[in-house]
Amino acid sequence: MFDQGIRFELAHLASVELLTADLEGSLWFFKELLGMRETDRKGDSVYLRCYEDPYHHSLKLTAADEPGLGGVTWRTTSRDALERRAAALDSEGVGLGWTKGDLGVGPTFAFESPDGHRMELVWEIEKYRAPEDLKSKILTRRSKRPLQGLPPRRLDHVNLMASDVTAQKDVFEKALGFGTRERVLDYTTNTEIGAWMSVNILGHELAIMRDSTGNKGRLHHIAFWYGVPQHNSDAAELCREYGVEIEAGPDVHGITQGAFLYVFEPGGNRVELFGNSGILELEPDFETVTWDFADFDTGLAIGGAKLPAETYFIYGTPPHGPRRGAIASADRSSTASNLADSTP
Amino acid sequence: MFDQGIRFELAHLASVELLTADLEGSLWFFKELLGMRETDRKGDSVYLRCYEDPYHHSLKLTAADEPGLGGVTWRTTSRDALERRAAALDSEGVGLGWTKGDLGVGPTFAFESPDGHRMELVWEIEKYRAPEDLKSKILTRRSKRPLQGLPPRRLDHVNLMASDVTAQKDVFEKALGFGTRERVLDYTTNTEIGAWMSVNILGHELAIMRDSTGNKGRLHHIAFWYGVPQHNSDAAELCREYGVEIEAGPDVHGITQGAFLYVFEPGGNRVELFGNSGILELEPDFETVTWDFADFDTGLAIGGAKLPAETYFIYGTPPHGPRRGAIASADRSSTASNLADSTP
Amino acid sequence: MFDQGIRFELAHLASVELLTADLEGSLWFFKELLGMRETDRKGDSVYLRCYEDPYHHSLKLTAADEPGLGGVTWRTTSRDALERRAAALDSEGVGLGWTKGDLGVGPTFAFESPDGHRMELVWEIEKYRAPEDLKSKILTRRSKRPLQGLPPRRLDHVNLMASDVTAQKDVFEKALGFGTRERVLDYTTNTEIGAWMSVNILGHELAIMRDSTGNKGRLHHIAFWYGVPQHNSDAAELCREYGVEIEAGPDVHGITQGAFLYVFEPGGNRVELFGNSGILELEPDFETVTWDFADFDTGLAIGGAKLPAETYFIYGTPPHGPRRGAIASADRSSTASNLADSTP
Amino acid sequence: MFDQGIRFELAHLASVELLTADLEGSLWFFKELLGMRETDRKGDSVYLRCYEDPYHHSLKLTAADEPGLGGVTWRTTSRDALERRAAALDSEGVGLGWTKGDLGVGPTFAFESPDGHRMELVWEIEKYRAPEDLKSKILTRRSKRPLQGLPPRRLDHVNLMASDVTAQKDVFEKALGFGTRERVLDYTTNTEIGAWMSVNILGHELAIMRDSTGNKGRLHHIAFWYGVPQHNSDAAELCREYGVEIEAGPDVHGITQGAFLYVFEPGGNRVELFGNSGILELEPDFETVTWDFADFDTGLAIGGAKLPAETYFIYGTPPHGPRRGAIASADRSSTASNLADSTP
Repeated sequence: MFDQGIRFELAHLASVELLTADLEGSLWFFKELLGMRETDRKGDSVYLRCYEDPYHHSLKLTAADEPGLGGVTWRTTSRDALERRAAALDSEGVGLGWTKGDLGVGPTFAFESPDGHRMELVWEIEKYRAPEDLKSKILTRRSKRPLQGLPPRRLDHVNLMASDVTAQKDVFEKALGFGTRERVLDYTTNTEIGAWMSVNILGHELAIMRDSTGNKGRLHHIAFWYGVPQHNSDAAELCREYGVEIEAGPDVHGITQGAFLYVFEPGGNRVELFGNSGILELEPDFETVTWDFADFDTGLAIGGAKLPAETYFIYGTPPHGPRRGAIASADRSSTASNLADSTP
Repeated sequence: MFDQGIRFELAHLASVELLTADLEGSLWFFKELLGMRETDRKGDSVYLRCYEDPYHHSLKLTAADEPGLGGVTWRTTSRDALERRAAALDSEGVGLGWTKGDLGVGPTFAFESPDGHRMELVWEIEKYRAPEDLKSKILTRRSKRPLQGLPPRRLDHVNLMASDVTAQKDVFEKALGFGTRERVLDYTTNTEIGAWMSVNILGHELAIMRDSTGNKGRLHHIAFWYGVPQHNSDAAELCREYGVEIEAGPDVHGITQGAFLYVFEPGGNRVELFGNSGILELEPDFETVTWDFADFDTGLAIGGAKLPAETYFIYGTPPHGPRRGAIASADRSSTASNLADSTP
Repeated sequence: MFDQGIRFELAHLASVELLTADLEGSLWFFKELLGMRETDRKGDSVYLRCYEDPYHHSLKLTAADEPGLGGVTWRTTSRDALERRAAALDSEGVGLGWTKGDLGVGPTFAFESPDGHRMELVWEIEKYRAPEDLKSKILTRRSKRPLQGLPPRRLDHVNLMASDVTAQKDVFEKALGFGTRERVLDYTTNTEIGAWMSVNILGHELAIMRDSTGNKGRLHHIAFWYGVPQHNSDAAELCREYGVEIEAGPDVHGITQGAFLYVFEPGGNRVELFGNSGILELEPDFETVTWDFADFDTGLAIGGAKLPAETYFIYGTPPHGPRRGAIASADRSSTASNLADSTP
Repeated sequence: MFDQGIRFELAHLASVELLTADLEGSLWFFKELLGMRETDRKGDSVYLRCYEDPYHHSLKLTAADEPGLGGVTWRTTSRDALERRAAALDSEGVGLGWTKGDLGVGPTFAFESPDGHRMELVWEIEKYRAPEDLKSKILTRRSKRPLQGLPPRRLDHVNLMASDVTAQKDVFEKALGFGTRERVLDYTTNTEIGAWMSVNILGHELAIMRDSTGNKGRLHHIAFWYGVPQHNSDAAELCREYGVEIEAGPDVHGITQGAFLYVFEPGGNRVELFGNSGILELEPDFETVTWDFADFDTGLAIGGAKLPAETYFIYGTPPHGPRRGAIASADRSSTASNLADSTP
């Protein structure tokens, strides 16, 4: 069981930085198809948020040669918790030290996961305040639901590939108080193949899956939350119509009970759209569930979906090979055309 | 039972003309919130269609002093059927003669319902052909699903108020072959309060409800079809966010089993969004179902929705009194804002 | 285009007889999991209906050595239409003559499709009248929605395999007035691979798909209608929980726009659950849509579902080989257990 | 802001005891219509759980002269937390002392809310272990999804009426660490009309609403969780079909963003079915949202639902007057009939 002093130190996933090999294409995907709103720009980076995201941004898109994860920012439950976790990360030997933060983000403590993913912890963060015309009549909603695209409500989780799942998982458990809700174990080699972890009652805010290619520090996917199963079907239809590559879904994982749709955004990264709340783990003394790698079909999908072996278990970003997700500009050129006066 | 020669003469509802007292506001509602695409303009009229509507337009919006119904166009099943129905309407004494049609509409035979609603029958009609960038990958879909707003798929039905339901209904049955699927009867006075009619297996393409105000020729509502229950909830949320007046729903009528959401568009007309397919009546010798006016709660709503007596059973267009649906321009100003680069 | 005199002769699909190699298992599937109600028994046959099916039964389950199609019954739009279609079938050389009908079914005219599927046409049929305790408060609903399982509302369509799609299709077009909404064409050999046909505005009530195994007269699947997309996800979950083999879905076909879930019932037949209304074809002069066999991914699925080549394009009933769908009785033993008083 | 030492002391709502004036009727409702499973009986009490509830039971139904709340049990995050909270409750003067617990429940510390609702805190509790035939293939699911009725997944929250909302709320904040997410304030009198509180990221596990009748210690409702919006529509349909009184919904509250359906169970208590996850509050330093009592239409419902003034804001249990929810046994007699062989 967790130590009382560790398990309530982190609050939640605050934001993710994504590197994109096609900034223009990624912006089309996140703004026009997913209806996210741009809140800032700086250098090669554009800052975006979903309409219920609480802070200045939940997604930072940065132009780069290759797609991948720029970083992940976790918010602590207090200023003191930040100090304590910084010390713990230093003890684990993965601390990188304090930073001045970013647009909308105060001082952070940076660290690197054992597999090489850059992360930061933060307490001081800029809460998003909607301008008058974007204020929602629903008071817990930080801004109006957009009329553009099919907008997810907030950033949900991040899924990392790791060359050693156990080593990666251990640091998150020991230094940051993550609880491991579910894992997949290869009993023949006693090797962990995947782990799904959380700092609150969500089924997971962090997942780690084995990178069988031997690469390190790669991103499997980031996920945005609809919370409504139908929206995953709608998203699949829009992706199909507008040329966005669908990898798998809509279906529901047995693991996390999450309703998934996986697509590749034009910049090359895998993005999951999350159509329900997944299992919520309310028990304080929950027991980690272990799936048998030799028999976890239900874990992968409750319905008939197949997760394609040639991508789902191989492809991460940076890809170190052909990049997925590129789409013809013709496919995405028509999005605003019904606002224009036109006689087709 | 229907005469074999009459019942397959009309094919379906092709289009509706709506008069609006706020053309600008109505265009915002139909184009930005409902994502319909404009296909043409002429004089004070704008022509629109949903992404699965088969023809040049399904909705013609015309600026006018008062909201109301400009007209309804029905398509016949053949050219000969058109001739036969024209003759039948003349026999009933409601024919108005042939017209040259309209943009996208060939020669029509015009008539006036006993209560005074203008209608037309047509055979020759312009099928919509999407330009290259609006072509859908789904081949039965006449154009891509838009990324703007929450787009319904097609025009569904029209609901008219009438001072005498029976007289109105009889003409549609006798001259045009409509089948009456359901009706509401006030047994105390043996008066029909409402009738739901169709020329195909849809539960209704035409409804007639008693106008208790004594006015004639008014419109109760036109309906657009989502076919997906969740979309009615989404539409309610967007209407709430953007200041569109919601009258009732989402819920499901017992009558027609139709999933409804009623709102007032800014021009003053009631619009229904239709979130399922309703009952489909496949039996060729179906029996008309009669609801008792004294006990038709389930007919009105299967869930707990109440249809407000002060509007639902009174308000039609033209309203002959205060107009509903007007919305502040502030509420609708922000729709495109997430496409603009901005720091709120 | 259709001849006016032919296209409104058939009304709809009335019932299907399914042969089952495990009557007990099939009854568990259709009654306990799908909540269909038994209405009659005779010999080795059990008669069932969904809660909105209009007649005595829509499904007749008959014990047999091998699964397969016992027969398909179509209802005509009138008594005269039945006589005319019988004559037309005789002209085509496929008529088998008149029969006395069955439980709840009056005199029928039997025929055999070119590929060997037995069918019947009927006019006189017993309408289902619910006993007092099964009457629905929703008057167009023939009986109360059951509390057992996840009940579909009615029989939807039948999909046949045929060694020669075109020959099969031609008879249904010419003798019975079916319209072909969509087809898949192999342009390299100019061979039709599939056809989706209807006698009303439904996207299809009859489909024909090429049997690449060279067998004749086999069944691909029968489909039951939910009309609600979420119910397909629920059905997948229940099938997963109770050991029913899922072949593919939930997803949506581009062809017909039908929301599908394919499972194998314990008796060995493929059953589709249909979670929306599919495309409704209202145009009287619709144009048949042709998909290119070399490029019809979107036709197969709008989302990411894959239809497994080793079963979907091969397996039919009778299977002439290993039978699918068998489930352990342990998996299905617990269905009623929450009604019993028990301390687990 | 909360004191760090208080805010993570309670884990979640573990169970509720409901008093019923019609035990037979209540059992029909919870077992046959809602598909909950009975796990135990003792004296006049029956113990039930939803298929994802983690413990021995989430609902204890006890026969009584009047409907109402028997008690509410909260689980702490640790054994020490239980001790600390017991001391805090004693300090507040509301502690009732330690009890031996109940079936499946270890020692508890009992207390009474300022308004008179009996509650208990517990750490030791019996985790539910499914027998072999009820084990789910989805490993985080404590038992198979039932085939009976329309089963909710778990107990969600409890909503209490109180003569003084602020006094009630203060004790839950100060002694137990609840966070108040939202409240309704009557600015004219500076009186709190309602408060929605949580000990985790759920929008609320406890709500308090002003009892305008002057009664004390009454229950407004308990809620069970579907998490899927469509299920609330399905539940409404089943309640309509089987004679269960629907008060309001399905719709979505602006407050908590919860998808609601309110019905009266046959024993007289209001039950809410909860069709989404509501707003999840991830921010550790969230700000309490205040709705203005003079203008909280959106707070009550996002769609067009009206919460009926004559019941929603008045009726609680015990009712101290006519009891709602009684249903004719004829309405509920037919539930299992499709499992019996019968010729209607």
